[in-house]
Amino acid sequence: MSRYLNASLQALEAYVPGEQPRDQRYIKLNTNESPYPPAPSVCSAIGEEDVALLRLYSDPTGKNLKEKLAGLYGVKPENVFLSNGSDEVLNFAFLAFGGKGAVFPDISYGFYSVFADLYGIDYTQIPLKEDFSLDYRDYCGQGKLVVIANPNAPTGLSIPVDAVEKMAASNPDNVVIIDEAYVDFGGETALPLIEKYDNLLVTRTFSKSRCLAGGRLGYAFGAPALIADLEKIKYSTNPYNLDRLTLQLGEATVDAEDYYRQMCVRIQETRAWTRDRLEQLGFQVLPSRTNFLFARTDRVDGGELYRMLKERGILVRHFANPRICQFNRITIGTPEDMATLIGVLKDILGGC
Amino acid sequence: MSRYLNASLQALEAYVPGEQPRDQRYIKLNTNESPYPPAPSVCSAIGEEDVALLRLYSDPTGKNLKEKLAGLYGVKPENVFLSNGSDEVLNFAFLAFGGKGAVFPDISYGFYSVFADLYGIDYTQIPLKEDFSLDYRDYCGQGKLVVIANPNAPTGLSIPVDAVEKMAASNPDNVVIIDEAYVDFGGETALPLIEKYDNLLVTRTFSKSRCLAGGRLGYAFGAPALIADLEKIKYSTNPYNLDRLTLQLGEATVDAEDYYRQMCVRIQETRAWTRDRLEQLGFQVLPSRTNFLFARTDRVDGGELYRMLKERGILVRHFANPRICQFNRITIGTPEDMATLIGVLKDILGGC
Repeated sequence: MSRYLNASLQALEAYVPGEQPRDQRYIKLNTNESPYPPAPSVCSAIGEEDVALLRLYSDPTGKNLKEKLAGLYGVKPENVFLSNGSDEVLNFAFLAFGGKGAVFPDISYGFYSVFADLYGIDYTQIPLKEDFSLDYRDYCGQGKLVVIANPNAPTGLSIPVDAVEKMAASNPDNVVIIDEAYVDFGGETALPLIEKYDNLLVTRTFSKSRCLAGGRLGYAFGAPALIADLEKIKYSTNPYNLDRLTLQLGEATVDAEDYYRQMCVRIQETRAWTRDRLEQLGFQVLPSRTNFLFARTDRVDGGELYRMLKERGILVRHFANPRICQFNRITIGTPEDMATLIGVLKDILGGC
Repeated sequence: MSRYLNASLQALEAYVPGEQPRDQRYIKLNTNESPYPPAPSVCSAIGEEDVALLRLYSDPTGKNLKEKLAGLYGVKPENVFLSNGSDEVLNFAFLAFGGKGAVFPDISYGFYSVFADLYGIDYTQIPLKEDFSLDYRDYCGQGKLVVIANPNAPTGLSIPVDAVEKMAASNPDNVVIIDEAYVDFGGETALPLIEKYDNLLVTRTFSKSRCLAGGRLGYAFGAPALIADLEKIKYSTNPYNLDRLTLQLGEATVDAEDYYRQMCVRIQETRAWTRDRLEQLGFQVLPSRTNFLFARTDRVDGGELYRMLKERGILVRHFANPRICQFNRITIGTPEDMATLIGVLKDILGGC
């Protein structure tokens, strides 16, 4: 830290992303990436002539991609915001709508509290229930920015859309963000509610179900006035937040919807297989609607299991938070990845 | 605007980027893009296997590109910050270092005041002299964040590095940002000063001299502690701010340095030719160290000239600010582009 940093930011603790080892030594089940590449039509979408055109700025309005997303999801282009990953739209939303404070669960995406700290937003973290389920009534009538990941991470649990509706209806003077990063793996989307609730912002990402984590593309749905607020923040920070190639790959991705639906089905099948095997090994596994499983066993400490897996070439994600430190979050990889994981776990548990 | 937007942001006026028409009808001399494509080795750098790897997150540390930039410019990787265009690093720097207020010229990059407004930073715009030159003494001992584009936009004028040194030396308790977006077209870099002045931040972009405006890549040089502050902001907003392809193209660009030096020479030659012709037509043209010219004529109103050029298929940039509304900012294109411009201007002036 320099002595020039604003006093208000000196105590800020940044978000710590999952490990991104630069070698390929690990079976990487730690950051919820897809084990499958983008669709073949996406992989072949970029030619030399597209790179040559990078001499020109990208379209700051993202018109073509907005139109494609609007078409796919049955909304209007003015309901769509495009961002550099969904972290960026979440960041903008905290800055734009957090003035009266914020509220979110104690166990959820760890970035929410960082955004709040960055902008000096007073926030409350409401404990999930003992079984990590969420009681929507805790978020009704809050009068603050409400932020809910649905399905939730790292638990993998989801809430039904009528619970979201009750939160939106009972918070008429503040924004309710539903972070649907993982919705395509079995969650229930709140998207149909944006017509009825102009305070509802639904955020999405191409990083998980669209196999494009390294392309950096997120989006959000909301009433046109909410989207206009986010555009104002974007045009006040970085109007060209999306590069030409990312926009182009995003369009090609929307065009390949069938491929991605198939990949989501495949991941859900592998998830079911993995969950069964983990339970057979004595793990407690939360019922997941995501591309990961959250699991613990009484036989090995959670942090120790994380380390033992890493030593054996498998990276998973462990969180130090005492409420969940006995768990590990395990991304669903290919069937082969998960068979390897189960074999390694058998070895580890056999020695416990 | 929604009724949910924070009160503090309701009056915010976002930056208005130059027009980005989506058709190819215009000779586009309005946003200081390069008329030349990236180097051949850059254009061919992306294969299908690279797009396939987009399923994985990018390296949030940008290690390879930082090392390459450090090698090219003779600094250490810890002196380098990577950003999504230089707008992003400027945004972060205002947020991180603007706590005591900011000061910058009245005629400069229009985004500086937007960043300040966004974060509620009190700022002063110091008038440039009558001839648009900058008196460095105006910025000495300010005790606020000092932001200077060198060379300046839209004037194209530059200040010598010893003037930068005096500003840095006389502001020991605040950061001095030197925005060197255009330095490769004839400016004098302040980079050697970062060893001596730990309050000096030098920002750069791949958008102009590196022909990569649509790739979104910027960077900054500074003391390791300053860079660490910017990293903290990045990891508190969007850790994966750069996608894999942009990082890869950035590396290929650094490897093709000779090509880009040749393109800069070519643009400077075309600039000299264009300036001569404009002066022959009676224009006043400021002496430019950039890839654009800032020019006016008594024979046509500046706004009117902008419109007449647009009608004839040539886009330039006009600013409404009364101090410069008689000028137009004209990006240097290819020799053919500029010959067309001169021909069209002859027609227009012939009819005045």
